[in-house]
Amino acid sequence: MSNVLWTELVRRLTPYVPGEQRHGDNIVKLNTNENPYPPSKEVLKAIAEVDGDMLRRYPDPESRELRECLAEYHNLEMSQVFVGNGSDEILALAFMAFFTNGQPLQYPKLSYSFYPVYCDLLGIEKQVHELETDFSINMTLFEDNRGGIVFPNPNAPTSLAAPVDAIKELLARVPHTAVLVDEAYVSFGAQSVVDLVKQYPNLIVSQTFSKARSLAGIRLGAAFANPELIEALSRVKDSFNSYPVDAVAQRAGIASLRDETYHRQTVAKIIATREETVAELEQRGFRVLESSANFIFVSPANGNAAALFDELNRRDVLVRYWRSDELAAWLRITIGTDDEMKKLLAVIDEASLVV
Amino acid sequence: MSNVLWTELVRRLTPYVPGEQRHGDNIVKLNTNENPYPPSKEVLKAIAEVDGDMLRRYPDPESRELRECLAEYHNLEMSQVFVGNGSDEILALAFMAFFTNGQPLQYPKLSYSFYPVYCDLLGIEKQVHELETDFSINMTLFEDNRGGIVFPNPNAPTSLAAPVDAIKELLARVPHTAVLVDEAYVSFGAQSVVDLVKQYPNLIVSQTFSKARSLAGIRLGAAFANPELIEALSRVKDSFNSYPVDAVAQRAGIASLRDETYHRQTVAKIIATREETVAELEQRGFRVLESSANFIFVSPANGNAAALFDELNRRDVLVRYWRSDELAAWLRITIGTDDEMKKLLAVIDEASLVV
Repeated sequence: MSNVLWTELVRRLTPYVPGEQRHGDNIVKLNTNENPYPPSKEVLKAIAEVDGDMLRRYPDPESRELRECLAEYHNLEMSQVFVGNGSDEILALAFMAFFTNGQPLQYPKLSYSFYPVYCDLLGIEKQVHELETDFSINMTLFEDNRGGIVFPNPNAPTSLAAPVDAIKELLARVPHTAVLVDEAYVSFGAQSVVDLVKQYPNLIVSQTFSKARSLAGIRLGAAFANPELIEALSRVKDSFNSYPVDAVAQRAGIASLRDETYHRQTVAKIIATREETVAELEQRGFRVLESSANFIFVSPANGNAAALFDELNRRDVLVRYWRSDELAAWLRITIGTDDEMKKLLAVIDEASLVV
Repeated sequence: MSNVLWTELVRRLTPYVPGEQRHGDNIVKLNTNENPYPPSKEVLKAIAEVDGDMLRRYPDPESRELRECLAEYHNLEMSQVFVGNGSDEILALAFMAFFTNGQPLQYPKLSYSFYPVYCDLLGIEKQVHELETDFSINMTLFEDNRGGIVFPNPNAPTSLAAPVDAIKELLARVPHTAVLVDEAYVSFGAQSVVDLVKQYPNLIVSQTFSKARSLAGIRLGAAFANPELIEALSRVKDSFNSYPVDAVAQRAGIASLRDETYHRQTVAKIIATREETVAELEQRGFRVLESSANFIFVSPANGNAAALFDELNRRDVLVRYWRSDELAAWLRITIGTDDEMKKLLAVIDEASLVV
């Protein structure tokens, strides 16, 4: 499809493609890194109590109460906290605010596949760094280029966490370059660097309520940085959409932050299920990278991930596969409930008779 | 505040400033064009029924059920419908999709003050057309410049509606130029041009659930155009934020569309209150433009709107005033409940003893 009114920008875009959202009673959905458990009951209560006044009025455009809660949670000031419509929106705004200097943006070859999409949208040149052969990020490859650096920690889809010391060394070595650490999956085993925003004026950390807090449906993300970088993000936000976080999402986020016990329990359950699943897969000859996320990155013994993906899909077990040469041998599998992972293993055992 | 890491973009931005969000029991808030009535009870019910599964899962990134409802409501196809996180986000995405051709964007001198903000963010040149002396938009000034045209209908802050025939003539005369008609306030008396998207491939119409549907707190907007322009908008959206409309907002929007009786009743009440308020103000010597919106644009007999604004503000009646030469004599007043408007008039009568 094309049109005389399409701009060059629209013509050149190749948008991000999220995992398939097939639903159904018998489908085991392990392809979009959703949390298998519901959010805290406090969140459901906060939403059920929404009244007409909260809906007819504009929400607080600055989300102050939510940002105060986040600041308290992380032992920061509200001026060091930003919130947005999912961490995807925060990444988009951060790319506009920090990575449009005319210098290339640096990121690892395997990482969140939305990064090159933002670059194409915003006309940002890309400088892609190879991973080590063990799939870890080589922090020494990043340069102080004034363009920008972004990587997920733990990385996606590899699931590997980076050591905090390596991140500290990087931050000290590139003082003229904004470094965005995308901590979407940090709660599941990696060490957060949120605290480092107090020491490193070039650090921005983004997080999300979608994964560990089971709020993918509500679209809520947060970012942390020194007040000057938060002010820059706010300026871009207020030039794009003043009220991206609605009144219900603000309430839901606050309620989630106030039920820390539930949050910890849920995360602990998922980590336990992950470790059991990893052991089972390794018994079956799979190679599994050491995961600090709510997903695992695995390669079957015969290396034929494509055939296994198709067989799983045919049997209503959805996992993520990228049809690219470098990832041909790998699948990304979200950690579900214990029952879901048992089904996965049963279907893998059945499928192994075929593939 | 400034920082070595701020880009030129961040430095040059002057963000949109929304109306003051002061709340309190005695405050009469007539400054942000919010609806004084709550949304339909069906909306509150739909929100109260939100469950853990809806929250832990990503929402449908394409919002298909909501778009189907909107298509049915407007007698269009789903492929002619787009939704976003408030009409502000839709405007931002539309500016990126349609107005970044390197030619200037044309808009009327008095119109939504976010338009120049988007232009500054996206590096779009501005071509601002003067209004007629009666504040109406002169459609013949717009040129087929391939850059773009945007105007609100009814216009804000003037409240005046444009005749549909003038819009039709414009659309036919500028076939190489995308025309965005911003119908945020259309339900309160102007004639919508949504139906014209079937005939004019250069027309995009944006609407919002914030005003007539009392859902400012939920952030939901819609756009209508031919499928090729909707595809362009979707490409930009999917390169910026795949899931801007959360699961709760999708449900709320559907519930609102299904209660047409309530929607019509609410709009009728606001129009009746507006007409009474206009009569009262005209009795007091105010000049009032003929409003097709849920606000009125008024000038006191002595022309001293600044003094009246300050007096009203001091007495906890919030209205909107722009401290600029061309609008020095004018106030924008949102239509509230009958009681709120009586308070406004009482305070105006008190204030008139002072100013």
